[in-house]
Amino acid sequence: MSLVTLLTDFGSASPYPGQMKGVLRTLCRAAIVDLTHEVPAHDIACGAYMLAAAVRAFPAGTIHLAVVDPGVGTSRLPLAIASGGQVFVGPDNGLLMVAARALGTPRAHAIVVDRFALRPLSATFHGRDLFAPAAAAIARGLAVEQVGPPVPAPCVLPEHPPTREGGVLRGQVRYRDPFGNIITNIPAGWLDDLVGPLVIESAGGREAVRRVITYGDGARGDLLILAGSDGTVEIAVRCGRAADLLGLGPGDLVLVRAMSG
Amino acid sequence: MSLVTLLTDFGSASPYPGQMKGVLRTLCRAAIVDLTHEVPAHDIACGAYMLAAAVRAFPAGTIHLAVVDPGVGTSRLPLAIASGGQVFVGPDNGLLMVAARALGTPRAHAIVVDRFALRPLSATFHGRDLFAPAAAAIARGLAVEQVGPPVPAPCVLPEHPPTREGGVLRGQVRYRDPFGNIITNIPAGWLDDLVGPLVIESAGGREAVRRVITYGDGARGDLLILAGSDGTVEIAVRCGRAADLLGLGPGDLVLVRAMSG
Amino acid sequence: MSLVTLLTDFGSASPYPGQMKGVLRTLCRAAIVDLTHEVPAHDIACGAYMLAAAVRAFPAGTIHLAVVDPGVGTSRLPLAIASGGQVFVGPDNGLLMVAARALGTPRAHAIVVDRFALRPLSATFHGRDLFAPAAAAIARGLAVEQVGPPVPAPCVLPEHPPTREGGVLRGQVRYRDPFGNIITNIPAGWLDDLVGPLVIESAGGREAVRRVITYGDGARGDLLILAGSDGTVEIAVRCGRAADLLGLGPGDLVLVRAMSG
Repeated sequence: MSLVTLLTDFGSASPYPGQMKGVLRTLCRAAIVDLTHEVPAHDIACGAYMLAAAVRAFPAGTIHLAVVDPGVGTSRLPLAIASGGQVFVGPDNGLLMVAARALGTPRAHAIVVDRFALRPLSATFHGRDLFAPAAAAIARGLAVEQVGPPVPAPCVLPEHPPTREGGVLRGQVRYRDPFGNIITNIPAGWLDDLVGPLVIESAGGREAVRRVITYGDGARGDLLILAGSDGTVEIAVRCGRAADLLGLGPGDLVLVRAMSG
Repeated sequence: MSLVTLLTDFGSASPYPGQMKGVLRTLCRAAIVDLTHEVPAHDIACGAYMLAAAVRAFPAGTIHLAVVDPGVGTSRLPLAIASGGQVFVGPDNGLLMVAARALGTPRAHAIVVDRFALRPLSATFHGRDLFAPAAAAIARGLAVEQVGPPVPAPCVLPEHPPTREGGVLRGQVRYRDPFGNIITNIPAGWLDDLVGPLVIESAGGREAVRRVITYGDGARGDLLILAGSDGTVEIAVRCGRAADLLGLGPGDLVLVRAMSG
Repeated sequence: MSLVTLLTDFGSASPYPGQMKGVLRTLCRAAIVDLTHEVPAHDIACGAYMLAAAVRAFPAGTIHLAVVDPGVGTSRLPLAIASGGQVFVGPDNGLLMVAARALGTPRAHAIVVDRFALRPLSATFHGRDLFAPAAAAIARGLAVEQVGPPVPAPCVLPEHPPTREGGVLRGQVRYRDPFGNIITNIPAGWLDDLVGPLVIESAGGREAVRRVITYGDGARGDLLILAGSDGTVEIAVRCGRAADLLGLGPGDLVLVRAMSG
């Protein structure tokens, strides 16, 4: 039995995820797994991060149906992307490509609307009327190459790659998790470049930070820096919320260096 | 394998949906799909709307176990309703009938408590102790006619059907979605009666509104009116929240007409 | 097909439950059922209550993967516990034992990290990297005895057992549900000791309370006491929120007695 995951910004308090599940169950026999329906409304970058964070854990053959789609019904293309043995279905707005690139070399195809869309096709809910039917067709065995013509350059979100120069690590906040931990895009291994006590700098100021292995290290209230579970630098507070303490959220710039550097 | 969906006001932060899933898994082999557990507490009308919105997408044979049940343990009947090839199980308080009528001609039967209830039967959690076992029995093949005697006139919620007269459309807000979009009960096709610039009137005042096809049309902050994905008139704000702007929620009256009408 | 439930404090708005589901789907073919991901962050006692509340409804063979784990990556043991035909996998911090004891006589074993952990093993996400793989191995047929050496005395949370003396029932609040109902640890049957009108006393004061069968009894706004669905004394308000009215939450002491006692 194939597997379809769902990631949306529809809210689990809305009827929209249920409608997508109904279409999937009508059109295929795949198991359905919720990733999340709580991506902040219209926040493509956050959805892209959450999708990329999850997909590495899934087996080959998984189909990820992801819909954060403020441009629904406009000219943005509907896509199916194959990468690393998994498939992504959703809008061409940058949502899918971070995850697709994390798994391998993406091959993107535009979904031919007339072949897959439910009738009537609404202008405002392609998650139900177009993306779910396309995902169901792929779950039944259709190859991604057969959904429509190739799209050589799908939309990608602007990137601000992390840098390291002269003992200074610079990067961006990617995600603030429900515990208030700050996940950055700085590779965790880079911390090994830095010697002695460390500081974090951001628009909010400069703070000494303790390098630790896990959240339970240090004393209550200590600001901690550690290798996070997705392989990047993470900032936490022992028994507290780093994001609140530092006032940092997605997109904010952060710098890490040795205190004496 | 049959399919049982769940819709409740229990909150996904509570242990109650899990308990219902446990009973279902103990008594049958159906796949379980969450519609939502975030119906506002005791809000039968909102639950009825959300259930009706979802069921059209599901295949024949689906069993919908829906529990928004402020009268649990009182004299209200427990029901199983067959309609359009799908089945609804839940309390006789109006929750089920909007959805059941949307699918066809409902045939309702009262669930005989002594035949289905777990022992001991709690007075406060029939979702777990009565409705889940009855849904499991139906999932195993029991016909709705066999759960108990017919109920000729199940409880229905008061309706305020939309009207159109002299170029004026009147209706009610059915639902405010997590994006702040306002879903009304006015058939979307009626908008074709109106010519030229439109206005919306409600208790909060009178606003010019732009008729569009989808959310991405118009300029940032524009108040939009469009055909929603469930076939009724929907009011939105480009990159904003119409429900907050207009102060409208479920049950509120709205009127749409041509500005010059 | 075996069944794995998930209970965490990760938040359904985070990518972490999805990552655990991905590992499970990669390593076994079990059905996955969400209990909840909304345990308050780091609240082991609340998680223990919610897990115990749910497990009695599940069939023999169910594997419960439960992760509320502020000590992740420290010296706390990873456990698999068999009890009453069901299995619990999670940290040795008290989270699992309330549920395990509710089902029978627990037999706990420490999970040998090197045998089950994914490579690389993060220090901060054992739910994904250690507990999910161990649960998957058990779902594929491994006996709990084979995950590692027995743990004779797993961590248990401090208990404050309820008492009854001279017509006075004393206990603690275990849980405040999303409706604002207060669930105590006082056995519901003890209410039969008390004659005539009842009062509740707590740090917040003394209130007359009406003994009823279910939430729909009494008049709007009445403070109600009843036998809850998990067999303990529950306090509610007709069409209201008892926890807000009384200012009570988990751990708070409550006393119930006859008004004239």
